[in-house]
Amino acid sequence: MSFIATPQTMHFEEALALASGASIRDYHLSFETYGELNAARDNAVLVCHALNASHHVAGSYAGQPRSEGWWDNMIGPGKSVDTNRFFVIGINNLGSCFGSTGPMHAHPDTGEIYGADFPVVTVEDWVDAQARLLDRLGIRQLAAVMGGSLGGMQALSWTLQYPERMRHAVVVASAPNLTAENIAFNEVARRAIVTDPDFHGGHFYRHGVVPKRGLRIARMIGHITYLSDDVMNEKFGRELRNAVSGGGYQYSTQDVEFQIESYLRYQGDKFSDYFDANTYLLITRALDYFDPARAHGGSLARALAAAQARFLLVSFSTDWRFAPARSREIVQALLENRRQVAYAEIDAPHGHDAFLLDDARYMAVVRAYFDNISRELQP
Amino acid sequence: MSFIATPQTMHFEEALALASGASIRDYHLSFETYGELNAARDNAVLVCHALNASHHVAGSYAGQPRSEGWWDNMIGPGKSVDTNRFFVIGINNLGSCFGSTGPMHAHPDTGEIYGADFPVVTVEDWVDAQARLLDRLGIRQLAAVMGGSLGGMQALSWTLQYPERMRHAVVVASAPNLTAENIAFNEVARRAIVTDPDFHGGHFYRHGVVPKRGLRIARMIGHITYLSDDVMNEKFGRELRNAVSGGGYQYSTQDVEFQIESYLRYQGDKFSDYFDANTYLLITRALDYFDPARAHGGSLARALAAAQARFLLVSFSTDWRFAPARSREIVQALLENRRQVAYAEIDAPHGHDAFLLDDARYMAVVRAYFDNISRELQP
Repeated sequence: MSFIATPQTMHFEEALALASGASIRDYHLSFETYGELNAARDNAVLVCHALNASHHVAGSYAGQPRSEGWWDNMIGPGKSVDTNRFFVIGINNLGSCFGSTGPMHAHPDTGEIYGADFPVVTVEDWVDAQARLLDRLGIRQLAAVMGGSLGGMQALSWTLQYPERMRHAVVVASAPNLTAENIAFNEVARRAIVTDPDFHGGHFYRHGVVPKRGLRIARMIGHITYLSDDVMNEKFGRELRNAVSGGGYQYSTQDVEFQIESYLRYQGDKFSDYFDANTYLLITRALDYFDPARAHGGSLARALAAAQARFLLVSFSTDWRFAPARSREIVQALLENRRQVAYAEIDAPHGHDAFLLDDARYMAVVRAYFDNISRELQP
Repeated sequence: MSFIATPQTMHFEEALALASGASIRDYHLSFETYGELNAARDNAVLVCHALNASHHVAGSYAGQPRSEGWWDNMIGPGKSVDTNRFFVIGINNLGSCFGSTGPMHAHPDTGEIYGADFPVVTVEDWVDAQARLLDRLGIRQLAAVMGGSLGGMQALSWTLQYPERMRHAVVVASAPNLTAENIAFNEVARRAIVTDPDFHGGHFYRHGVVPKRGLRIARMIGHITYLSDDVMNEKFGRELRNAVSGGGYQYSTQDVEFQIESYLRYQGDKFSDYFDANTYLLITRALDYFDPARAHGGSLARALAAAQARFLLVSFSTDWRFAPARSREIVQALLENRRQVAYAEIDAPHGHDAFLLDDARYMAVVRAYFDNISRELQP
């Protein structure tokens, strides 16, 4: 049983300038905090979320025992990131669909639902929005910023955009940019959504429909890339769902034959019931666009010269979406800048998903790192 | 400029019993032959095709100089499989959409277009149909059966279903069955097609429409898995299609931003103009179902005990769809049966697509193998 979490909302009147040149004003951010900000205000840890997550990082909601936050195994009293020592903050990003202002909300000028007109947001924009929220909470400098996958990109970007506002950055299962293959998977998912007749150019809300077919396909593709080939073989292999008498095939092209098909269809159905299609487009685009080396002629080392934080990077051996080699690029670029970096490559079978799962070595590495951070806190 | 190929058709009145328990009668097969069958009738080579290919293996059609067959770089006068020595046969499989009887043809009983009612066909069924065509051509024993990917599965199945009907089997970039991940990719592609509102339960022909949205998505997914991550990075990387002034992003979720997106959309559009949706379902299902070890308690070695042919297996280092490890499983199972096996693992950057591309070492390996076969031919 985990502790009780309580979501909060903060409203921002003033316009936030975005990387695209557009801006957004009169928006709100959902967030949660766990633990207590100490008197020195130096024990705050900001947790950035990935594609399908939110500000609900840890704990459970009152009366909903199965509502654990997405990193509840990592963060809480006595856990690797110990909320008895740290004040942990989770923020739902702009454009997401879990409470913060996003495509399903109304534009303040027109009162019309944004839909596809919600401005394109980048990792850098999210970091700017998060920084404003920290300002309001009176937190000048974080003990650490941390995240996995797309969340790790935000943590990395924090160290470049606000180098003096954190002492540590924990970047898990991440990359300095997406490869062409990763962009390709995102693009197929987006095409599935956009070409669903129920998408209506992104204004499906007006039509009382949801492009569920596209969302299902997008999620199925995503799920394949989150798992390793090995773990799929171990969990599902070629197992049939309903072998006919004698254990044979049903010989159907449309019915579920293999367990893996049943699993993927279930994941797709579940996702399409709650995730917003425009948010999916926005967040995958933010992934595509992130590339701090771009402004430095492709040199990651030059890009990371701005960082002042100390770093922990973690990758997972079977993660083919954000492969260990991509984390090592970041490590290398930081070392070229003589930054302090710890790096753990965890031999885990679960692919990209490993960053969300329990693994004794992974949890121990993060625990040890945060134990060290806690020793730096003012008493 | 390649030689002139001429497609032929053969009609089969008698019913062919299928693995599913169904049967198909009154069907025709499209095929092509190159070179001359020698007097001893011992120089025939059957080439089996993969998902998106046909009986048009080599040569070009008269007046269509850009219509080279899909393995024209491999097969022809003086090439690795030398049609001055060998009589090469390409057959379009049942259920395909390039001439042989398939879902867009009429059921002989009802006169109605088969559509989704076309019987589910397996690799074993295709081999049976191919064997009948060889009977008609008066070819009792092949010098070799060969194929890549799904075509390699057919070549392997030939050696088990008709062990005495070939002296050699050449199995390129193939596998003894699909992994869960491969089935998963097939399933997502199928769901994209089946859930396209223009699919109409597989009877879209009656409605005068084609489920192009689904076919596009299916092809885009396929293309990603045919290429290696490395070759995608090399060919496309993070290159933009139309950088705005200053080389920056356009900031759009729906427009093409990266070159890889433009490439995938083009491939998807092209494919959806000519490929049949029901055929896509049938062929991916045949891939899913192939698993000769299944009837032998999962033992590939026991399954391959039936084979009498000598083998050449070829795999490609960066092929993650049919990884070298899968070819090595076949090699190992054959060796356990004391069969004669040559195996080449080609260090090529192109992923699964490598089996269709020019690579000097690959072509040389196949050439050397067929040179040896040609020495066994009767003068």
